[in-house]
Amino acid sequence: MDNHETEQRKSEHLDIVLHQKVTSHQITNGLERYRFRHEALPEINFSHIDIGTKFLNKTLLAPFAVSSMTGGTDSALYINQNLALAAQERGWAMGLGSVRAALEHPEVAETFRIRKYAPDILLFANLGAVQLNYGYGVDECKQIIDLTEADALILHLNSLQEVFQPEGNTNFQHLFSRIEALCSALDVPVGVKEVGWGIHGELATRLYSIGVAFIDVAGAGGTSWSQVEKYRSPDNQIRHAAEAFTEWGIPTSDCIIDVRKHAPHQHLIASGGINTGVEGAKSLALGADLVGIGRSLLHNASSASTPDTLISQLKRIEWELKVAMFGIGCKDIPSLKGTNRIALIHP
Amino acid sequence: MDNHETEQRKSEHLDIVLHQKVTSHQITNGLERYRFRHEALPEINFSHIDIGTKFLNKTLLAPFAVSSMTGGTDSALYINQNLALAAQERGWAMGLGSVRAALEHPEVAETFRIRKYAPDILLFANLGAVQLNYGYGVDECKQIIDLTEADALILHLNSLQEVFQPEGNTNFQHLFSRIEALCSALDVPVGVKEVGWGIHGELATRLYSIGVAFIDVAGAGGTSWSQVEKYRSPDNQIRHAAEAFTEWGIPTSDCIIDVRKHAPHQHLIASGGINTGVEGAKSLALGADLVGIGRSLLHNASSASTPDTLISQLKRIEWELKVAMFGIGCKDIPSLKGTNRIALIHP
Amino acid sequence: MDNHETEQRKSEHLDIVLHQKVTSHQITNGLERYRFRHEALPEINFSHIDIGTKFLNKTLLAPFAVSSMTGGTDSALYINQNLALAAQERGWAMGLGSVRAALEHPEVAETFRIRKYAPDILLFANLGAVQLNYGYGVDECKQIIDLTEADALILHLNSLQEVFQPEGNTNFQHLFSRIEALCSALDVPVGVKEVGWGIHGELATRLYSIGVAFIDVAGAGGTSWSQVEKYRSPDNQIRHAAEAFTEWGIPTSDCIIDVRKHAPHQHLIASGGINTGVEGAKSLALGADLVGIGRSLLHNASSASTPDTLISQLKRIEWELKVAMFGIGCKDIPSLKGTNRIALIHP
Amino acid sequence: MDNHETEQRKSEHLDIVLHQKVTSHQITNGLERYRFRHEALPEINFSHIDIGTKFLNKTLLAPFAVSSMTGGTDSALYINQNLALAAQERGWAMGLGSVRAALEHPEVAETFRIRKYAPDILLFANLGAVQLNYGYGVDECKQIIDLTEADALILHLNSLQEVFQPEGNTNFQHLFSRIEALCSALDVPVGVKEVGWGIHGELATRLYSIGVAFIDVAGAGGTSWSQVEKYRSPDNQIRHAAEAFTEWGIPTSDCIIDVRKHAPHQHLIASGGINTGVEGAKSLALGADLVGIGRSLLHNASSASTPDTLISQLKRIEWELKVAMFGIGCKDIPSLKGTNRIALIHP
Ligand SMILES: Cc1cc2nc3c(=O)[nH]c(=O)nc-3n(C[C@H](O)[C@H](O)[C@H](O)COP(=O)(O)O)c2cc1C
Ligand SMILES: Cc1cc2nc3c(=O)[nH]c(=O)nc-3n(C[C@H](O)[C@H](O)[C@H](O)COP(=O)(O)O)c2cc1C
Ligand SMILES: Cc1cc2nc3c(=O)[nH]c(=O)nc-3n(C[C@H](O)[C@H](O)[C@H](O)COP(=O)(O)O)c2cc1C
Ligand SMILES: Cc1cc2nc3c(=O)[nH]c(=O)nc-3n(C[C@H](O)[C@H](O)[C@H](O)COP(=O)(O)O)c2cc1C
Repeated sequence: MDNHETEQRKSEHLDIVLHQKVTSHQITNGLERYRFRHEALPEINFSHIDIGTKFLNKTLLAPFAVSSMTGGTDSALYINQNLALAAQERGWAMGLGSVRAALEHPEVAETFRIRKYAPDILLFANLGAVQLNYGYGVDECKQIIDLTEADALILHLNSLQEVFQPEGNTNFQHLFSRIEALCSALDVPVGVKEVGWGIHGELATRLYSIGVAFIDVAGAGGTSWSQVEKYRSPDNQIRHAAEAFTEWGIPTSDCIIDVRKHAPHQHLIASGGINTGVEGAKSLALGADLVGIGRSLLHNASSASTPDTLISQLKRIEWELKVAMFGIGCKDIPSLKGTNRIALIHP
Repeated sequence: MDNHETEQRKSEHLDIVLHQKVTSHQITNGLERYRFRHEALPEINFSHIDIGTKFLNKTLLAPFAVSSMTGGTDSALYINQNLALAAQERGWAMGLGSVRAALEHPEVAETFRIRKYAPDILLFANLGAVQLNYGYGVDECKQIIDLTEADALILHLNSLQEVFQPEGNTNFQHLFSRIEALCSALDVPVGVKEVGWGIHGELATRLYSIGVAFIDVAGAGGTSWSQVEKYRSPDNQIRHAAEAFTEWGIPTSDCIIDVRKHAPHQHLIASGGINTGVEGAKSLALGADLVGIGRSLLHNASSASTPDTLISQLKRIEWELKVAMFGIGCKDIPSLKGTNRIALIHP
Repeated sequence: MDNHETEQRKSEHLDIVLHQKVTSHQITNGLERYRFRHEALPEINFSHIDIGTKFLNKTLLAPFAVSSMTGGTDSALYINQNLALAAQERGWAMGLGSVRAALEHPEVAETFRIRKYAPDILLFANLGAVQLNYGYGVDECKQIIDLTEADALILHLNSLQEVFQPEGNTNFQHLFSRIEALCSALDVPVGVKEVGWGIHGELATRLYSIGVAFIDVAGAGGTSWSQVEKYRSPDNQIRHAAEAFTEWGIPTSDCIIDVRKHAPHQHLIASGGINTGVEGAKSLALGADLVGIGRSLLHNASSASTPDTLISQLKRIEWELKVAMFGIGCKDIPSLKGTNRIALIHP
Repeated sequence: MDNHETEQRKSEHLDIVLHQKVTSHQITNGLERYRFRHEALPEINFSHIDIGTKFLNKTLLAPFAVSSMTGGTDSALYINQNLALAAQERGWAMGLGSVRAALEHPEVAETFRIRKYAPDILLFANLGAVQLNYGYGVDECKQIIDLTEADALILHLNSLQEVFQPEGNTNFQHLFSRIEALCSALDVPVGVKEVGWGIHGELATRLYSIGVAFIDVAGAGGTSWSQVEKYRSPDNQIRHAAEAFTEWGIPTSDCIIDVRKHAPHQHLIASGGINTGVEGAKSLALGADLVGIGRSLLHNASSASTPDTLISQLKRIEWELKVAMFGIGCKDIPSLKGTNRIALIHP
């Protein structure tokens, strides 16, 4: 695939995600079906609430991560820079978009070199797991880690996205063994995520068992990639087919609960359609360790050359989390994660 | 009944179905209440997915059938030709509309002679079961098979449609014994279908037990014949009455599950309001062997003199089926039919 | 109360019911939550379907009754005449509106003398049960029967309607004993009905036990009398209060099921928001012996000086009932009443 | 905080509550999910229905209270006067808005001196419980009681409101022990209420156990304070955050049932989104002793200089309660509270 083509596709993705309706018609992340039981007398001082946490032995000031999104295009340069500066400022984790572009087209590698803007954050590099069937192995992954100075590598599972892309890589055979081999060969932890259709409990269990250090469910209810490809496709039948998949996927809340039921003690990131600190609080209360946010940060990340409005947004999300914690009387993340003050709304 | 009258009625039907809202207000095929559990790591190669199947000992390239629709009118000629050419091209099964017209008016028989366009397909001839009470017997059915060169005969049950038609044949007595006699006298297999109100498990069991080779549930949620007759009727009270029946019938998904529960190993076709390959995949996962599609093919079948756009539609439906199978990691139809990755959506 | 006032009120009622929205915002008769299980092979001849029945030892050609509605005003004269002629023609039962007006104002008695138009029908006279606390007793009821030549007397329970009427009679004490006395003193059977808020099983049981011959549930989901009074009231606060009661009452379907559970063998009429023969069929399948229809007949009853359009409407309702019976393979009313082919729709 | 600022805030609150949509988008008080089972033959005389009750040993002519709302601003003067005159006229209880303003700014104390207009009513003074952490103690509370001549003091719990206010007091530590101390030191009973997010059963139990005499649940479904602050905030991020909390809180009906289950015999006020006597009747039937109404009285309380329209509204609410009681055959409040004629609507 030539560089121009990849760049083109990635710019189109950004454009569509920023300006079109890319969410499902009916399916939601399911968090609206859960409600916190308000604690009218919280017995804590709001100013004592501490949302700091640890993930993969690194300290975070807030239990949030910027989801893997971009890199490899012109606009990616300052989007990633803004995201990195904001993550550093607020102490969030951050994921880079797929670093494959950097290896195939060294001239765009710069867009992934954001460690200088964010020396202290937990930083995730990113690669499509399916690339392990298309020429990528331990060496390439090491290059990716070196280039990005990341703390960990996330492999994303995006089967349906690959199918919907004309240029997609759609051989998903033998990936378990390749992931297993990679996990034992790399020095950094390897995580696995979806891109918006979700990971269920059994798959998570199997991935943890082969050495995967953490899972990001990336469930349904947020950005829907069949929708995104619908806007891109020149083929009328593909556009039509995309419609048939708008309601596909496992809602984020179902994923969290299912994975947590199967693997009570493993590292777990919740993401997929999460926009507010209240949704973040629900995800943590349902079992997640960290909360990933993607598309809803893009607007502020791309609209200015400084990270200021983006930082405000991060602060707002943190503040919402704190207020939710105050509302149920939890003064720190462990207590939020152990709460029983969340329940399904009666139908 | 004179020829002009029948032709007139059948043209009106086509016209109404193509240009009016002929579906229920509330009732759906129920498939939207089922969701596949996404398998983020499918472990298969998309290009290996095989949707071929067998039905009545004939090989199909895809588990789809064009539902019985037309014949006996001018436009039927090229609609049936298009459907036959497309079915041949894509390896689908195909049903003809009721062949009664051809026997009563030999001059329209040509519209049913489509075997020449589709030498290899599984082809179903069609007759209203109630005609067995109105002068049709083994001989007439043999003529129908001879004329159409069909592999099997489908008898349709359409009690309410007959009632709503001014000229309807509404004596449905003694049909079990007549169908039984026909099954043992004919050389080809005999199937039974509804026309949009569905067949439940007990009835299916009884039909299988008297020699019926396969059932097509033709459930509620798609074309509603009371709605169609509403547009045709000159009688204000009949139009009003039709409204009272818009929500009548057993949703397609309920039929599939019920028939499959009663008859785990018999041949079963799902149809009624199915428009996409995702709905087809759900029907197969819920227990069907083949998926029938009617009205949603009519537009492309009737809008051009070549089958090209119709063939594109068939390919799109097949592709949607394949993508759905990829999404849950099933590489062939037996594995899709055996999957447990489908569940009712929590309400 | 002077005559002018009563007449005025009754004309206003008719006017409002004919021209305003007088149904609840949310509450329905609940019959839409039940669905017949379609029987694709009914094994009967549509033309053999017999909807005749018996009620109170009188033969009816159809299991329907015109609900008690009018009398005592100018327009009542020809409305009641139309209803009587139509009921006679189609063999329905019929209820008169409250005959109290005739006793208090002999000059309007003529509007209740409709036996001459309907010599053969089952005819119900009507009186507010609460009048037994306001000077009415056995003698007055005998006069009512004599005047109307009715086969039975229905006492209506309309507590909330009386409260919403400025001139209402709102002492409902001691009515059980007065009804009991009346039942044993009158030569004709006495029934009890509501006017749109429903009668539940325990009350029905108690009424049957004191000699009441039949119950008409007159449940919620159709005409709502708080709504009707809302349009009439000059008092802003009463209009406001009426809004608070739009969702009051027991839905018709709940009443039928509850009364039938408590009293499996007693005479039971279903009414309240029933407009079609399909709803009638559901009511009978759920346990009713007869189906009452009120408001939806008024338009045709009042819009012309001949009963022709009204008769067409009655025929249409009967036809819908027959089609529904055909759709589930029931050839007569006893078989419809014994059917198990009706079920709550899964939510 | 200077006087001008507090006054300003309180005027803004009134203004917003009167002229903006301040309720949640989805969450309701939940009472619409409960339906009374209509009693067609109530066996009582409407004119005998008695809605008088006792609360804290004081006689009320109706089981209603004006919820704590205002004081300390110009408009509060005649709003409180209207509310007091109306409460006196109709025999309702009444709560004052937080009396803190009167202690900090003696010049506004007059707005809380309404005992002269309502010599006989059960009158509640009001203070934010959190003020016990900000310099308020037994002495200040005694001053509040003296100044207002109130029968009891209500402490309100408003954690989220304090957080959303820029000037909020957000240290909610140690309040149990301070409330306990206050309860034993004061001569008047002390109650606790929320301000629109609800109090659940366990918290109520704990509060009763430390000497709190009564609870007002003030549940979700009515005025939402995050919504109110949304309109006030100059900070874009706070406005955004407010949206994330529109669906926060425990619906009023859930609170009533939960508190009553935990504390069957304690004094309990239901409030939060209650606007009609029918909702009041449901609250009492579900377990409340008294029903509080806030925002929906404000319009009439503030729109005229005489209490006449407000009194009409109170009468209308009482009349709705009576009609509801008539509709289920309850002739007094104890019988309404003991009724089993209320049930969840089938979904
Ligand atoms: C513009 C865009 C680009 C993305 N690129 C990647 C990617 O390269 N690698 C990846 O793992 N996920 C990628 N994702 C998926 C996100 O990481 C995330 O899982 C998904 O968008 C769902 O989260 P959201 O609803 O918060 O957006 C991308 C998402 C967006 C919106
Ligand atoms: C125009 C038209 C004509 C039809 N004619 C027949 C027919 O002759 N025989 C038959 O068995 N079914 C007939 N059907 C019913 C279809 O086979 C099918 O059962 C029904 O339309 C429901 O499927 P759908 O929702 O995919 O259209 C007809 C349907 C249509 C739309
Ligand atoms: C205009 C009008 C007048 C009525 N008058 C009476 C009456 O006098 N006596 C009575 O028992 N019911 C009376 N009803 C109530 C009806 O008999 C019936 O119970 C109610 O309207 C519910 O049925 P529906 O929804 O089919 O209208 C009246 C109804 C209407 C619409
Ligand atoms: C304008 C306004 C001012 C209020 N001020 C107070 C207050 O000072 N103290 C208090 O306990 N509650 C206060 N409340 C809350 C009410 O007492 C009540 O709990 C809440 O509004 C929910 O009831 P509603 O939905 O009937 O309005 C106030 C409410 C409103 C609308």
